[in-house]
Amino acid sequence: MPLFNILVLGGDHIGPEVVAEAVKVIRAAEAHPAVSKKNINFNLDFDLLGGQSIDVHGIPLTPQVVEKAKKSHAVLFGAVGGPKWGMTGALRPETSVLDLRKALNCWANIRPCKIPSPGVAKCSPVKESVVKGTDFIVLRENCGGVYFGEKMETADYSHDVWGYHRWEIERIARMAAYLARKHGGATGPSKITSIDKANVLAVCRLWRDAVARVHDDEFPEIPLFNQLSDSLALLMVKNPRSLNGIVLCDNIFGDLFSDEAAAIVGSLGFSPSACLAGIPGGEEKTTGMYEPSHGSAPDLAPNKANPIATIQSAAMMLRYSCDLDFLADAIDDAISIALDDKAARGLEVRTGDIGGAASTTEMGDAVVSAL
Amino acid sequence: MPLFNILVLGGDHIGPEVVAEAVKVIRAAEAHPAVSKKNINFNLDFDLLGGQSIDVHGIPLTPQVVEKAKKSHAVLFGAVGGPKWGMTGALRPETSVLDLRKALNCWANIRPCKIPSPGVAKCSPVKESVVKGTDFIVLRENCGGVYFGEKMETADYSHDVWGYHRWEIERIARMAAYLARKHGGATGPSKITSIDKANVLAVCRLWRDAVARVHDDEFPEIPLFNQLSDSLALLMVKNPRSLNGIVLCDNIFGDLFSDEAAAIVGSLGFSPSACLAGIPGGEEKTTGMYEPSHGSAPDLAPNKANPIATIQSAAMMLRYSCDLDFLADAIDDAISIALDDKAARGLEVRTGDIGGAASTTEMGDAVVSAL
Ligand SMILES: CC(C)[C@H](C(=O)O)[C@@H](O)C(=O)O
Ligand SMILES: CC(C)[C@H](C(=O)O)[C@@H](O)C(=O)O
Repeated sequence: MPLFNILVLGGDHIGPEVVAEAVKVIRAAEAHPAVSKKNINFNLDFDLLGGQSIDVHGIPLTPQVVEKAKKSHAVLFGAVGGPKWGMTGALRPETSVLDLRKALNCWANIRPCKIPSPGVAKCSPVKESVVKGTDFIVLRENCGGVYFGEKMETADYSHDVWGYHRWEIERIARMAAYLARKHGGATGPSKITSIDKANVLAVCRLWRDAVARVHDDEFPEIPLFNQLSDSLALLMVKNPRSLNGIVLCDNIFGDLFSDEAAAIVGSLGFSPSACLAGIPGGEEKTTGMYEPSHGSAPDLAPNKANPIATIQSAAMMLRYSCDLDFLADAIDDAISIALDDKAARGLEVRTGDIGGAASTTEMGDAVVSAL
Repeated sequence: MPLFNILVLGGDHIGPEVVAEAVKVIRAAEAHPAVSKKNINFNLDFDLLGGQSIDVHGIPLTPQVVEKAKKSHAVLFGAVGGPKWGMTGALRPETSVLDLRKALNCWANIRPCKIPSPGVAKCSPVKESVVKGTDFIVLRENCGGVYFGEKMETADYSHDVWGYHRWEIERIARMAAYLARKHGGATGPSKITSIDKANVLAVCRLWRDAVARVHDDEFPEIPLFNQLSDSLALLMVKNPRSLNGIVLCDNIFGDLFSDEAAAIVGSLGFSPSACLAGIPGGEEKTTGMYEPSHGSAPDLAPNKANPIATIQSAAMMLRYSCDLDFLADAIDDAISIALDDKAARGLEVRTGDIGGAASTTEMGDAVVSAL
C-alpha cells in the first residue's frame, strides 16, 4: 500500500490559492478507481513558508519545516513574497525558497517548455507556426556555478567565481540522460543539447568535456549536441521546436533560458518546475520540490490566478517522486481538455492571463471534472 | 574639408561581398550634392583579416593591420571564418576579431534592435503585433567581466572570475547616457534599462550601485530602470517594445541578449553593430569598429547574402565615428525604401533570408538607388 508523504507549502498571496487547486486535483486522482484499486494514498501535511511564516514565527523558514520536508517524499510549493515583507533585508520571504532548496540539496531543476494544449498556442508572443509542437525541458544545474562561487565585494571592485567540479557536471549530465529517455519514451531517447560558452570560458570547456565523456562512457546512444549560449538565446525564439528534447544548462544559463522558455509558451502560468536531489528511482532517499515558476503576484485580485502551472507541478511530483507516470499523464491530459475541449465537452476554461475570465477555483474544477 | 580614413576589412566568404555593398553605399553618399557641397570625403583602404590573412601572411591579424586600424577613424569589417581554417587551434580566423577589438580597446559594443521597415516585421518569429515599433539598443560592456577575468583550468575543476571595477561600469553607464540622448532625439532622452542579477551576484550589486551613482550625479534627468537578467530574457520576447531605449548590459549578458534581440528582429541580416573606445566627440582619439552581427556563412552560394546589416553598420560608422547623422539617417531611410516601398517606387527588394530572391548586389543597388 504505497503511501506518499507530501508537505504542502502554499506561501504568500496567490501561493495558497493555486496550491489549493493542485491539492484538489491530487485528491480527485486519489479517488479515481484505477488509483484507489492500487491503494495509493497521499498523506498531505500543510505548513507555512515565506511571509506567512515571518508573520507567525518571525522567520521565513523554520527548522521544523526543514525537518518535515526532509522526511517527506515531496514538497509542493506555491510562491512567496510581497510588499508587506520588503524585497531587501535579512528577513526576506525569498530566502526561504533558496534555503529550502539548499537544505534538500536539490541540484537538478527541471522546467518543461511545452504548450499544454494546441488551443492556447495563440497565447504565445511567438507565431503559432513557430511555436507549435515545441516540447523541450530546460534542465538546470541548481547547486553550483557562479551562484555559489566565492564572492568578493569591495567599494571599487567586486567579483563572483564561476566554477564547476567535474563531478557536479557529471551528475547533472546523468540526469539529462535519465530525462532524455523518459521524454523520448517508446520512440527512443530524445536528444540532449548541452549549453556552454566554451569558446570564451574555461569553466565551459570543462563543462563540455565532462558532458562528452560521461555521454561516451554511459549513454552513447543518446544524441548529444553542443550549442553556444548566445546562439541558443537566438534559436529558442527563432526555432524552439528544434530544441525538442533536453536542454542542459549550468546554473546561471539555466536561470536565463528557463525564463526565455517561459516567454515562448506564452504565460508563466504554464511553467511548472521540479527540483530534485537525485535521479528518481536511484538508491539515495531524496525529497523533490515542486513549484510553479511564477511569483506570488501580490497585486492580483483574489481567485484570479492561473493554477495550471501548480497543477502541472503536482503532475511532475507524481512522475518524479511517486513513480506514477500514468497518473501524471492523466492530469496533463485533463489540463489540455479543460483548457481546450470546447467541441467535445464544452470545456474551454481559461483564466485572465490567457485571455479568459475563469476564476482560479473554476479552472481547478475544470481540471478535476476532465480528470 | 573633412576627410575620414576608413580601413575596410572584408574577411572571409560572404564578408567581402556584403562589405562591397556597404562601400557602394558610402561612395553613393559621398557623391550626393548635400555631401560633396560640404567637401566630405572618405579615404578607403582595404586589407585582409581572418582566413584570407592566414592564407597570405600565415596569421589571422597582422601587426600592419593593427597599425593601420589605429590610425584610421573607423574600421568597417565583414565576417571571418570557415571550415578551411578550422574552429580550434591557435590559428583561428575568429581570434583576429577579438584581438583587433582588444587592440583598439573597444569597450562599448552597440547593437540596435529595430525592424528596418514595417514591411519586414513579418520576418520576425514573434507576432507582428508584439514586435512592431520595437526600437532599442543593446549596449554591451566589451572589455571586462567574465570574458577577461582570471581563469583556472584543471582536469577536475575550472573557473572564470566574473569581476568588474567601478570605473569600468561608470564609463559604460556614461556611454548609455550618451546613447539615450541620441536615441531620444528632440523628444528628450530615452530611458536606460540596466541589466543585472543583483539578487544573487556580488559583481551585479556593484554594477547596480555604480550605475545608480553615476546616474544620480551626472544624468539624473534620464529615466533609469533596473531589470533582473532572467526577467529580461522573458520580457524581450513577451514585450520587446517596453524596452525601447537603451538596454545596458555587462559583457556576458550583452552577448546573450544581443543575440536574443537579433532573433526578435527576424534576421541576423538586420543586426548591425558598432564597437567604440570612447564617447563620440570626446577628447581622446578613438577608432570605431563596425560590423554585421552575422558570421561568414561559408555554406551560402555566392551573391546570396543579405548586405543590409553591413550597410546599417556603415550608417552607424557615419553616425558615431564621423558625426554625420544626417547621412546615417538618409542611409537608414534608403534601406527602408529599398526593402519596402513597392507602392511608391516599385521597390521591394529582399534577399533569401527574408523571403525574397534578390542577390547581394541587387539589394545593395536598391539601397543606392533609393538614396
Ligand atoms: C529568485 C532567484 C534567486 C531565483 C534564481 O535565480 O534561481 C529565480 O530566478 C529562479 O529561477 O528560481
Ligand atoms: C565569437 C565570440 C567570441 C563573440 C563573443 O562572445 O563576444 C561573439 O559571440 C560576439 O558576440 O561577437
